[in-house]
Amino acid sequence: MSICGTDLHIYRWDPWAADHVRVPVTVGHELCGIVTELGPGVEEPEVGTLVSVESHVVCSRCNWCRTGRSHLCENTKLLGIDRDGAYAEYVVIPAGNAWTNSADMPLSVASLQENFGNAVHTASTPSVAGMNVLVTGMGPVGLMTMATALALGARAVIGSDISDYRLELAEKMGAALAINPMRDDVASSVLAATEGEGVDVLLETSGAPQAIDAGFAVLKAGGEAALLGLSSRPFDFNLDDHVIFKGATVYGIFGRKLWETWFQARGLMASGAVDLAPVITHRFAFDDYEAAFQLMDSGSCGKIVMFPDPTDADGPLS
Amino acid sequence: MSICGTDLHIYRWDPWAADHVRVPVTVGHELCGIVTELGPGVEEPEVGTLVSVESHVVCSRCNWCRTGRSHLCENTKLLGIDRDGAYAEYVVIPAGNAWTNSADMPLSVASLQENFGNAVHTASTPSVAGMNVLVTGMGPVGLMTMATALALGARAVIGSDISDYRLELAEKMGAALAINPMRDDVASSVLAATEGEGVDVLLETSGAPQAIDAGFAVLKAGGEAALLGLSSRPFDFNLDDHVIFKGATVYGIFGRKLWETWFQARGLMASGAVDLAPVITHRFAFDDYEAAFQLMDSGSCGKIVMFPDPTDADGPLS
Amino acid sequence: MSICGTDLHIYRWDPWAADHVRVPVTVGHELCGIVTELGPGVEEPEVGTLVSVESHVVCSRCNWCRTGRSHLCENTKLLGIDRDGAYAEYVVIPAGNAWTNSADMPLSVASLQENFGNAVHTASTPSVAGMNVLVTGMGPVGLMTMATALALGARAVIGSDISDYRLELAEKMGAALAINPMRDDVASSVLAATEGEGVDVLLETSGAPQAIDAGFAVLKAGGEAALLGLSSRPFDFNLDDHVIFKGATVYGIFGRKLWETWFQARGLMASGAVDLAPVITHRFAFDDYEAAFQLMDSGSCGKIVMFPDPTDADGPLS
Amino acid sequence: MSICGTDLHIYRWDPWAADHVRVPVTVGHELCGIVTELGPGVEEPEVGTLVSVESHVVCSRCNWCRTGRSHLCENTKLLGIDRDGAYAEYVVIPAGNAWTNSADMPLSVASLQENFGNAVHTASTPSVAGMNVLVTGMGPVGLMTMATALALGARAVIGSDISDYRLELAEKMGAALAINPMRDDVASSVLAATEGEGVDVLLETSGAPQAIDAGFAVLKAGGEAALLGLSSRPFDFNLDDHVIFKGATVYGIFGRKLWETWFQARGLMASGAVDLAPVITHRFAFDDYEAAFQLMDSGSCGKIVMFPDPTDADGPLS
Repeated sequence: MSICGTDLHIYRWDPWAADHVRVPVTVGHELCGIVTELGPGVEEPEVGTLVSVESHVVCSRCNWCRTGRSHLCENTKLLGIDRDGAYAEYVVIPAGNAWTNSADMPLSVASLQENFGNAVHTASTPSVAGMNVLVTGMGPVGLMTMATALALGARAVIGSDISDYRLELAEKMGAALAINPMRDDVASSVLAATEGEGVDVLLETSGAPQAIDAGFAVLKAGGEAALLGLSSRPFDFNLDDHVIFKGATVYGIFGRKLWETWFQARGLMASGAVDLAPVITHRFAFDDYEAAFQLMDSGSCGKIVMFPDPTDADGPLS
Repeated sequence: MSICGTDLHIYRWDPWAADHVRVPVTVGHELCGIVTELGPGVEEPEVGTLVSVESHVVCSRCNWCRTGRSHLCENTKLLGIDRDGAYAEYVVIPAGNAWTNSADMPLSVASLQENFGNAVHTASTPSVAGMNVLVTGMGPVGLMTMATALALGARAVIGSDISDYRLELAEKMGAALAINPMRDDVASSVLAATEGEGVDVLLETSGAPQAIDAGFAVLKAGGEAALLGLSSRPFDFNLDDHVIFKGATVYGIFGRKLWETWFQARGLMASGAVDLAPVITHRFAFDDYEAAFQLMDSGSCGKIVMFPDPTDADGPLS
Repeated sequence: MSICGTDLHIYRWDPWAADHVRVPVTVGHELCGIVTELGPGVEEPEVGTLVSVESHVVCSRCNWCRTGRSHLCENTKLLGIDRDGAYAEYVVIPAGNAWTNSADMPLSVASLQENFGNAVHTASTPSVAGMNVLVTGMGPVGLMTMATALALGARAVIGSDISDYRLELAEKMGAALAINPMRDDVASSVLAATEGEGVDVLLETSGAPQAIDAGFAVLKAGGEAALLGLSSRPFDFNLDDHVIFKGATVYGIFGRKLWETWFQARGLMASGAVDLAPVITHRFAFDDYEAAFQLMDSGSCGKIVMFPDPTDADGPLS
Repeated sequence: MSICGTDLHIYRWDPWAADHVRVPVTVGHELCGIVTELGPGVEEPEVGTLVSVESHVVCSRCNWCRTGRSHLCENTKLLGIDRDGAYAEYVVIPAGNAWTNSADMPLSVASLQENFGNAVHTASTPSVAGMNVLVTGMGPVGLMTMATALALGARAVIGSDISDYRLELAEKMGAALAINPMRDDVASSVLAATEGEGVDVLLETSGAPQAIDAGFAVLKAGGEAALLGLSSRPFDFNLDDHVIFKGATVYGIFGRKLWETWFQARGLMASGAVDLAPVITHRFAFDDYEAAFQLMDSGSCGKIVMFPDPTDADGPLS
């Protein structure tokens, strides 16, 4: 099981969490596990299978589910928010939400796979092949979005974040340039790195209004932007300059396409085009979750994975 | 020659006009005319041809012109703003900006054709076939956008505007519902008319922040929005609710695709699928331009066409 | 219940039928009906509802069903071929295959709706807006394909068929030109009608190799072709000239997109953009099915609808 | 200057060559060179620039050129076929057909770039990200198509060819499997390598009817096929099984998109995502062209580059 930004909101119990989480509930929604028991009538995946879990439980009956867009199902129940989630020894999920992994997949990668799906959905919606790309936000999902854009043939990916720890990770993972907007001007840095042109594609994972604004400012006319990060509130946005005069296309990204994104993600890992290992920077025993959450809160980490049984850890514990 | 909203900005000499128009310049950019002389080396269109004019003069050499996206040319010169335009007896344009019409096209329709292109570009970018559509803004371009959406197979088109004159026009031209937000709540009206679902597509031509906000509020998850109207300033916009959670796609619409849009527009008129006649509500002699602009300013009109030689008018003068 | 070309194959018991139909089976797959009883656990549609029926029963578990492409489900069971179908007093179908109609929809139209879906799938896959279109084959599905293309903004639709009866129907329903290749050369007729250009889009519903060949011959470079008609055997096809040199895009059309096509079809009928009434040329009491099939075999008909209880007929019996 | 399959047809003077080449003409169309003189009024690229050349000279005035599809220009003149080409000390080309390279690009790569564009056009038209892909034909353009598919995130690429020399090259360049249909059954080999599923995407570069047939036979339902190879004649093709029942999409690929493909190609090389070096297996002095063509004819080579001045060769001569 791993920690998502959403889990941090819940840990902090901020206004969003207070509004959305139905207590009491077992939280956590990024997970993998071994199938231990099947409900009546269920035939697969077999007991003993290593599965990852799609955390959006959909209804299969609404107009969205009936038109190949279950990720927008109007009756979606979220694991760890609307129904009991991952931070537990056992969790009950619909069979249709289990995704079968090969038995030799590292547990940390298997746990990360749902969040990786967000990155794949974000990076694959615009056309990045041969293009200059800016990813704003170098948290785990931003790093995976960058890695995916590179795997899909981007010419160069520039990353921005306010954490130097994360910018270093970004450079290790292939960023052509890593910008800290606390120190450097995003616009001039991006223009300098792109022969004065700006970028063809913006992939936004931070939700920070300043980052969104700076990202659109360097997007070329005719460019595409995929927005995943949530700002939690309206803010002053220049639709004229950022979208209309540019003839830009903007995609709102929510969840993972069921199940196109999972198939794409599987392929990108199977070929080695994306290597998720560098994103996973820390491993904790689940009993030390307090320390894990505090580290997450500090921003000096990539993805943190927790192990109920620490002897299962597929790397050194922090 | 006809009056565009842009011309009204110039007539009022508002801050946008003061910033963008290079005086002295002959204004006006919606026009048709008869070819009277060809520059050296130019072979077509022949002298005597009735042409409409694409008002964006592009460079043919920049990256956008070289990738089939001349409408986003970084060196665009606008007729009536950057170079002498339509309100004159003669106007000089590059041969490549002339669009040959059949000789029997009414002059008012020929003049309107470039602005119709904006409508076609807006309505044809999302997929409207079989869908419920909201068009915000029922000025001439909004009305033509509505007519195009119907011609492309929309299930129903709802229009909104603050002018009752224009809402009446909208109803005559096929709006399933015409809403005046000064009187009726847009959200509840739209929901009532769509079995509580909202619309699949938003086509925005007003530029009014309230209209944009109300339009996105009733857009269904997975919906598409094409934005043509300019707000002239940033405003509070809820990217989370309006775009991201909905998994919406937003298209900025600028100018006309060169020349895909003109071909599409020609086809839609040739088949009779779109009839522009009802949009043209007033005809003036060009000498009465003062009265024409004041009427335009009042909002109690559709498209106004002016004739340098009033005996050319293809309908009664106002 | 109505007669599909497939039913005619079965009636004739040709090699395809002998190979594919699992006897004994009740045939027929175009139908509407009133819900009379619900299986255990089923809540909707309610008893008494007028429903049309999607005849492809899909598995919901294969890779195609899991990626929004159920129409390509690898475990599809076809009503009237793999399981008992429509030509009966009662038929059992999965609740998910029922499509709720408004109670006042004419029964003949409700029965036709699934086949109309094939037409909508075919005509909406390429971009017909403002374009010249050729529909080869003017049987019922060809006629509905033509009507849909017009509803989606086609500039002009040309139809071809070897039955003059059907060509007359085509003209009544809006064909710009109706060609009988037994009499007229398709290529020269199409070129004459399109200023020597050919068509932008080919919609093929006949399955006749000569029609396919003639259709591709007049398709413009960069054009799109949607193929629905089945030829039943390989034949000499010029991929170089018809597809590669032209940079053409060719779509194989199978069934209806579940359920995007049904939603589109509903919208096109609700707005009046498509009127199916002229396609239905004959009504029979079901007891006279022998006469109905013989008429169908002759080609001198549009769609034939049969009524188990002739007093239900929504038009004069033939 | 390099040798294209087309040049081999001309060398052999086969029926296609006799029909299409306007003698006398200087042949050859894959080239790079240094700009030595500019025509009147031309300002760029500057004298001394290393340029590659787009060999399709288009008219800029036809409907295709006016709608962003110049690669389908109806007045295209081909270098080395319709006008004097590359196998010469100097060649005259329109300024707009020159593509500026960085000065340090190896000459052999610069010469190869136009042909690489065919590969980029082919591999980027379907969606290969995360998908299993079959490339039929492992000649130079097939190898580059495979390399591009991998750069765009393909899960695995399988290659087929009848030359073992080329299959070895394919394996070196990343093929998951290299099949010789003279020895192994394509269908069973592909199924074995894809868990019995077949491939999502077929990229056809051989033009061999058997390869086309075998490729479509293992294409999954809903798959996409991009066809570049020319068969030179019609042949028995099963549209029903290969395209319609599968709901497949087939793209004819001709030339390079002007200039989207060149920009994409530049990005893919700039990032290192595609390395063309292994494709270039032989270098010849131009005076030894006879030996070069005989080697090309044998099939035991990748791309062959010839140097008018052998001291310019960027690798050992063969």
